[in-house]
Amino acid sequence: MVSSIKPILKSGAALRRTILSGTRAVAQQQHVAGVARAFSVSASQLLKTRLERDTMGELEVPADKYYGCQTARSKMNFDICADTDRMPDAVIKAMGVLKKAAAVVNRDFGLDTKASDAIQQAAQEVIDGKLMEHFPLVVWQTGSGTQSNMNVNEVIANRAIEIMGGVLGSKTPVHPNDHVNKSQSSNDTFPTAMHIAAVTEINQKLVPALRDLRDAFAKKQEEFADIIKIGRTHLQDATPLTLGQEFSGYTQMLSNSIERIEAAIPRLSQLAIGGTAVGTGLNTYTGFDSRMAEEISRISGFKFSPAPNKFEALAAHDALVEASGALNTIAVSLFKIASDIRLLGSGPRCGLGELQLPENEPGSSIMPGKVNPTQCESMTMLCAQVMGNHTAVTMGGANGHFELNVFKPMMIYNVLHSVRLLADGSRSFRVNCVEGIQANKERINKLLHESLMLVTALNPHIGYDKAAAAAKKAHKEGTTLKQAAVALGSLNEEQFGQWVRPENMLGPKDY
Amino acid sequence: MVSSIKPILKSGAALRRTILSGTRAVAQQQHVAGVARAFSVSASQLLKTRLERDTMGELEVPADKYYGCQTARSKMNFDICADTDRMPDAVIKAMGVLKKAAAVVNRDFGLDTKASDAIQQAAQEVIDGKLMEHFPLVVWQTGSGTQSNMNVNEVIANRAIEIMGGVLGSKTPVHPNDHVNKSQSSNDTFPTAMHIAAVTEINQKLVPALRDLRDAFAKKQEEFADIIKIGRTHLQDATPLTLGQEFSGYTQMLSNSIERIEAAIPRLSQLAIGGTAVGTGLNTYTGFDSRMAEEISRISGFKFSPAPNKFEALAAHDALVEASGALNTIAVSLFKIASDIRLLGSGPRCGLGELQLPENEPGSSIMPGKVNPTQCESMTMLCAQVMGNHTAVTMGGANGHFELNVFKPMMIYNVLHSVRLLADGSRSFRVNCVEGIQANKERINKLLHESLMLVTALNPHIGYDKAAAAAKKAHKEGTTLKQAAVALGSLNEEQFGQWVRPENMLGPKDY
Amino acid sequence: MVSSIKPILKSGAALRRTILSGTRAVAQQQHVAGVARAFSVSASQLLKTRLERDTMGELEVPADKYYGCQTARSKMNFDICADTDRMPDAVIKAMGVLKKAAAVVNRDFGLDTKASDAIQQAAQEVIDGKLMEHFPLVVWQTGSGTQSNMNVNEVIANRAIEIMGGVLGSKTPVHPNDHVNKSQSSNDTFPTAMHIAAVTEINQKLVPALRDLRDAFAKKQEEFADIIKIGRTHLQDATPLTLGQEFSGYTQMLSNSIERIEAAIPRLSQLAIGGTAVGTGLNTYTGFDSRMAEEISRISGFKFSPAPNKFEALAAHDALVEASGALNTIAVSLFKIASDIRLLGSGPRCGLGELQLPENEPGSSIMPGKVNPTQCESMTMLCAQVMGNHTAVTMGGANGHFELNVFKPMMIYNVLHSVRLLADGSRSFRVNCVEGIQANKERINKLLHESLMLVTALNPHIGYDKAAAAAKKAHKEGTTLKQAAVALGSLNEEQFGQWVRPENMLGPKDY
Amino acid sequence: MVSSIKPILKSGAALRRTILSGTRAVAQQQHVAGVARAFSVSASQLLKTRLERDTMGELEVPADKYYGCQTARSKMNFDICADTDRMPDAVIKAMGVLKKAAAVVNRDFGLDTKASDAIQQAAQEVIDGKLMEHFPLVVWQTGSGTQSNMNVNEVIANRAIEIMGGVLGSKTPVHPNDHVNKSQSSNDTFPTAMHIAAVTEINQKLVPALRDLRDAFAKKQEEFADIIKIGRTHLQDATPLTLGQEFSGYTQMLSNSIERIEAAIPRLSQLAIGGTAVGTGLNTYTGFDSRMAEEISRISGFKFSPAPNKFEALAAHDALVEASGALNTIAVSLFKIASDIRLLGSGPRCGLGELQLPENEPGSSIMPGKVNPTQCESMTMLCAQVMGNHTAVTMGGANGHFELNVFKPMMIYNVLHSVRLLADGSRSFRVNCVEGIQANKERINKLLHESLMLVTALNPHIGYDKAAAAAKKAHKEGTTLKQAAVALGSLNEEQFGQWVRPENMLGPKDY
Repeated sequence: MVSSIKPILKSGAALRRTILSGTRAVAQQQHVAGVARAFSVSASQLLKTRLERDTMGELEVPADKYYGCQTARSKMNFDICADTDRMPDAVIKAMGVLKKAAAVVNRDFGLDTKASDAIQQAAQEVIDGKLMEHFPLVVWQTGSGTQSNMNVNEVIANRAIEIMGGVLGSKTPVHPNDHVNKSQSSNDTFPTAMHIAAVTEINQKLVPALRDLRDAFAKKQEEFADIIKIGRTHLQDATPLTLGQEFSGYTQMLSNSIERIEAAIPRLSQLAIGGTAVGTGLNTYTGFDSRMAEEISRISGFKFSPAPNKFEALAAHDALVEASGALNTIAVSLFKIASDIRLLGSGPRCGLGELQLPENEPGSSIMPGKVNPTQCESMTMLCAQVMGNHTAVTMGGANGHFELNVFKPMMIYNVLHSVRLLADGSRSFRVNCVEGIQANKERINKLLHESLMLVTALNPHIGYDKAAAAAKKAHKEGTTLKQAAVALGSLNEEQFGQWVRPENMLGPKDY
Repeated sequence: MVSSIKPILKSGAALRRTILSGTRAVAQQQHVAGVARAFSVSASQLLKTRLERDTMGELEVPADKYYGCQTARSKMNFDICADTDRMPDAVIKAMGVLKKAAAVVNRDFGLDTKASDAIQQAAQEVIDGKLMEHFPLVVWQTGSGTQSNMNVNEVIANRAIEIMGGVLGSKTPVHPNDHVNKSQSSNDTFPTAMHIAAVTEINQKLVPALRDLRDAFAKKQEEFADIIKIGRTHLQDATPLTLGQEFSGYTQMLSNSIERIEAAIPRLSQLAIGGTAVGTGLNTYTGFDSRMAEEISRISGFKFSPAPNKFEALAAHDALVEASGALNTIAVSLFKIASDIRLLGSGPRCGLGELQLPENEPGSSIMPGKVNPTQCESMTMLCAQVMGNHTAVTMGGANGHFELNVFKPMMIYNVLHSVRLLADGSRSFRVNCVEGIQANKERINKLLHESLMLVTALNPHIGYDKAAAAAKKAHKEGTTLKQAAVALGSLNEEQFGQWVRPENMLGPKDY
Repeated sequence: MVSSIKPILKSGAALRRTILSGTRAVAQQQHVAGVARAFSVSASQLLKTRLERDTMGELEVPADKYYGCQTARSKMNFDICADTDRMPDAVIKAMGVLKKAAAVVNRDFGLDTKASDAIQQAAQEVIDGKLMEHFPLVVWQTGSGTQSNMNVNEVIANRAIEIMGGVLGSKTPVHPNDHVNKSQSSNDTFPTAMHIAAVTEINQKLVPALRDLRDAFAKKQEEFADIIKIGRTHLQDATPLTLGQEFSGYTQMLSNSIERIEAAIPRLSQLAIGGTAVGTGLNTYTGFDSRMAEEISRISGFKFSPAPNKFEALAAHDALVEASGALNTIAVSLFKIASDIRLLGSGPRCGLGELQLPENEPGSSIMPGKVNPTQCESMTMLCAQVMGNHTAVTMGGANGHFELNVFKPMMIYNVLHSVRLLADGSRSFRVNCVEGIQANKERINKLLHESLMLVTALNPHIGYDKAAAAAKKAHKEGTTLKQAAVALGSLNEEQFGQWVRPENMLGPKDY
Repeated sequence: MVSSIKPILKSGAALRRTILSGTRAVAQQQHVAGVARAFSVSASQLLKTRLERDTMGELEVPADKYYGCQTARSKMNFDICADTDRMPDAVIKAMGVLKKAAAVVNRDFGLDTKASDAIQQAAQEVIDGKLMEHFPLVVWQTGSGTQSNMNVNEVIANRAIEIMGGVLGSKTPVHPNDHVNKSQSSNDTFPTAMHIAAVTEINQKLVPALRDLRDAFAKKQEEFADIIKIGRTHLQDATPLTLGQEFSGYTQMLSNSIERIEAAIPRLSQLAIGGTAVGTGLNTYTGFDSRMAEEISRISGFKFSPAPNKFEALAAHDALVEASGALNTIAVSLFKIASDIRLLGSGPRCGLGELQLPENEPGSSIMPGKVNPTQCESMTMLCAQVMGNHTAVTMGGANGHFELNVFKPMMIYNVLHSVRLLADGSRSFRVNCVEGIQANKERINKLLHESLMLVTALNPHIGYDKAAAAAKKAHKEGTTLKQAAVALGSLNEEQFGQWVRPENMLGPKDY
């Protein structure tokens, strides 16, 4: 809130809140009207509201908010998880970017320069997050996001009116539809904002967080390069590798993750703007779409282009489903990594115990001294959420009809949630876990030398069947592999020492 | 906040917020320490914090919050979607119920009466939602919910200490672990709170909303009992039914929905409490679990019993997966109903147009006068979300290990989200759509009489093959069914009039 | 095949197969027509086919198959995964049950007795699986299952015609629609068959397999009752329990699983039959639905009743979604159990090693002597499949329109697949793994006594904070808990021995 | 089967089948042993089996099959959906490619030339599908696919032995492990075969089918270029577009689909081979991986390269999860398109009726003359299956541990199933539906001119609010838009005629 709406009487605030909250509004408005009549004042004065109107009629809105009728109607009509499921900030800010760009471009197509300037200034305030309290709508509104588009149009119009010295709600000199929404439709603005928001959040939050995590793993990979440990397949002892090699797999998974989400960017960078209501571009001008993509690129700092087919861009949000698929794959990767690390850190005395994870907090309210792999747990939980979000996005993507998909708010809500979860989660996991991981070298070494799977090194020398017999004998009798192999007469002690060397089992041989 | 913590200097607030926010805390604490030294005051004084300590050491916490060290650590260590993904209120309140019950029961097992009283009073404040600002933790914490259990223990302990005139943070006369958490573990309290919260929300919010929606459909079913309309199968014209019959299917689906979610209650009503750390009940007393179930039933008003097997109750949350499956089925039902209604209301001139839905808001920012089935869209979006939440819950349920499932916060978060979405969504859908649906009788009647599928009434009279020929002929030539059938010589006009009567096609015949 | 169709010339077989295979049919039929003309024989003679006709015209069908035109059309039109995704046998057999019941009931409503008898005999052959080769259709056909209903009608009609001495394809004296399908529609028969098939497979295959698995766990629970082992929460060492207690959780999960799937039976036992095309029951007779439910119950051996609302029963398959939700929950349970068992059996030397799983096969093609928890892997894989199938069922359930859901074949295919996977999988897991599990007592005992979490027993004696300090000191210094506690002065050796006894940590104390 | 195994006595076949079927095998083998003793013949003679042995001991296998002990053990141990869920042919053939390549490459690293030749010949027979009956194993086996790798090793070894004139089961001169599996492990061969199979199926089946479908839409797009129709958003009447524009969206979606699946190819083209047991490449030679990729590329005709990190390539199958995500996105696209087309084709008299879909079969067993959009239904069903398969793949991908993911067979089974469903489904949809779609021009034109949303063209002339008033007035009074607008005084008739022209509403204007 930029402090320009005059202070209002506190006494009316509570009543006003009640009045505009959800489904009880109508009855209470009638009550208020009665009270107002009794005191010979207008309901507006009593409630510190102002009258706004749209094509359906008049409505009181809070005097200290810039939004108008359509926002107020949506608040009343969609009282669903109102305390938790707000339209994501990133969408609102992306709408700010779009409206600012439109004000610039529309000047070329007849928009009054002063109005354009005021709209640009107001839109910049939206981008800067200064007007967040004026965007009260939830995700569970109309499936086209029309009400959030109108919320933005109303707020920017009234703020621009204020900047230009006009009267809030007068729609003059700046009209929410005719000026702020000029050459636009919810049907092309909302999907445009979805793409701007997704590209921005992915580039600004997710990719850097994944890069940092990859680098953290790369560092550990180097740090652990010389620690030879037992490998495990099927959770069973297998042939050895270095701990660095094991971590190199994680590094690779993170590198792939970055590639995967970046591969979704090209199609996310195509914008629906210019398609207006059904994709034809009715009520826009030739070149509007390209100019908008240019301005949006300039304002946002990311490269966008007009969607090659606007019909597809309004009716299908497969680019979001695709991006969600990439996020789902990243979640799969991180789930696996976090699972491994907590298993390797299990113990301290009755688990695998090969890694020591940072102790960030007491682990148990009943078991004193217990420290748990809580960052791994947080990570695996949020990965499960990303997978769930992906199901929701898939369902929404599949169920568009004709010229418009109407699962837009739900789809972008989930995509942005997944982006944020993976970004924040990767950072938290890195800072509070990965960077502090230490190898328990003593334990690692002990396990390595107890394992029977070093027997694999004997295959080229004595054949698979004899090697198997030695491993089985040692397992059954609780002896070492060497003892068993020698006892079976497959080789002598010296040969064993020569052939079975963990340090020679870490890669292919030269022929 | 119950107004008993002394006012703090405003000037320190911003700095304090910064200090305790996430990962930058350490660097900034050092900075503060420097500033404090320079002014010869303690960091605590400067920051309006107090020192708390746990088994890992000391930590500054905000002076105006009741929580202690472990909560503060969790805030720092889990800075993940901190603005949106808070532990649900319903879980916190359920924890209040549990802690109050424990204070009562523990009196029987040695807890000091005064401490018990103070804990009960503090717990009641939690139940009443008066202390919500003291529960800042997010879902993405430790997978056992330990930190939220400790958050509750710390807040109740400090508030009880305050009630008893002690010093905040002193852990005396009320210790968060030894008294508030007496005979408990996070591992049994958190799953107990999950079940209390789920049962409470389902009973208080979801079931009534579903009942109201069912009743609204039942009313429409009656209202539309005599309106004969064309049926549609495969989206193609089929034999007639009444609009009331069509709506009776929705009524039945809602009745089934209620049955389905209520069928999940028995297993949700079994509580893990008494299992403590691993299910054995170590550090509890014989009968503790039954007494707890009694007290929790009394306080909450819903009937609970001890879980028959505590090992299962800690290690698996299949009861939540089961409940989520019921919620998923309800979402499937509501998705279908909302889809039908929006299709039946499609138009106004180029769609099916059989129903008129209430006009709640302007529908388009570019197409003047457009009104959209926004409540149906909101409903189908939130149903998709419930399906996604179910995938997340399934993933979490499957991945527990040994004595403890550590996807607890994620699982209950999604179950409660789904409950709330379906409850709020059903109410909104009912109030803003279903109750106001009107039949467009003229249109319904017109379509009915244009249809060719009345031909089905001829099967028993002229056989399937001849009937088919008549329908095909009429379709090809654009004539009426009667004209085609008569032209084919299958019957005469009189017979047609006698045999093809929509009002006779609405049910089985007497033999 | 019951050997009554006359032998056909081999020479035509290859050509015939080509002709009827998929999309190339039309071109090749023209080719064949040309060849036939050239040799002055009919195409039918050349190809060993016979002519069948339906309302769309004539079609050659293989002479050695009972099916007619509509089946042949479906084969041509839906050449999709034809080698793997056939309509499940259980659906075909359930259709046999339904058609036999209809032949009995329709006698009461005017069906000729001889026709009824012949239909019953033919239907019994379908039930007995003798005619399976005559049901070539795939799942990916019309969404109502109409083509499979007609496949059954055609096969039974022709087989009944044959029994009565008529000419195949003549539709007399038994007509597929007028007699076999009398008083029915695909729209009520197919969902009826879905419910019959689901109830039958669940009762005959799944529930017994779950019971046997539960009993196997119960036996192990008893066998392991006295083996005290370390508990693990967060994969970290925790307080002890017996191996029998751990397995008791699995027993409970299986008991719950049985309850869950049985809870879905009531709604699966309600049949759509009697609803015909759109739910009204047009072209049936009063009482038809009840009589059908009676007969179906008698023939199948399971109790069925008419659906209370036929509109719901055709338009929504929420009962299948609900059942799939129960199967999903069972998969979650089994996934957890199988994961636990493979982790407990991990090793043999570098894992937890508390259990020895049966060695069923060599484990590795490169690592000699390796034995893997393959039954656990098979189980977790198939559980993942069940979860995937559930997503598909959910998607299908949500997307029905108006009077008919047209995802029927896909939905029942997945439900039956999940039933079979869990049934076969549970049996395989029990026989080849669970029954042969042995405890590695030596290893279990060693780990128990190395653990630090026995410290929890000290909470009531020295308090949480001091107990924590002892555990931490022991961990840091690599000493025993006793040494650390005594060194800290919290207790003396004698007290330690008295207070820390694993056998006293297995349950609540008497107060 | 290539006819070289000598004919066996029929009389033993039934008994042999029984003996080797599933879990009853052991008991029956004992019975057979008794019978054999009684007749003084060997059990092998009696049963027409031969003795094979592996590291666990001896086992009778069918004399007419090339597979050995490990295959036989898997058949007994994994009797799960044995009739339906076989390891996909594409995986077996890919294994053939791999084994052939290995025989070539291993010659460079010491494999005897004659053995290499024989292995190559046998492997080529596997590639050609000649030995399919020798691969009886199911998907639900060990999670590494070891048993299928051994199945291939055994079959190729015995066939190569036969080619070289040796004795089946003798393992000489070709040993399944030492020669066929030389320098390999199941852990690198199976994932290599997964990638070969996926790349092959995608390139050979899916991409061409998608291209053909795209081209079919492109053709329709052109054919329908001049048909102006009403647009629909929110299922409500909106501004006009051409039917060609509408179809251009579908064309674009298919183009995107091709891009999406092709974007997954690069990571699928990286092969695990050379990693052997845990990724280190133990028991291989430097350069083996590159040589293998070369040979596999040569044999398969697709370009493959060695995975840059073999640890990742064995332990994670994120490339399959990613590909499955692309398939999921394609399914979302096709679901939307098929839904649109069936809605546009709904009717014939009581639906939208803008499109006429080909009539491929009778639509109803009770409603004569009914024709349904069955290809759309088949398509939407199979898309739902692809979404379900994706959930399964995601679950499997997330649950790998340490050096090996053990959900391999399940993951590739689902990916290949989805590929085949989308490929076959796209072809069927194109041939049987899309190519035959016709526009119902009369109906389209009628609806266009009844619509009120042409009002949007008035926005730039009379403003949004006045335009809205006109639309509302016309809607309320059932008049035309022109009448309403003129009555409101917003314009005159001439202006209306000039401003509201559908043909001018199909694109942006020049400024």
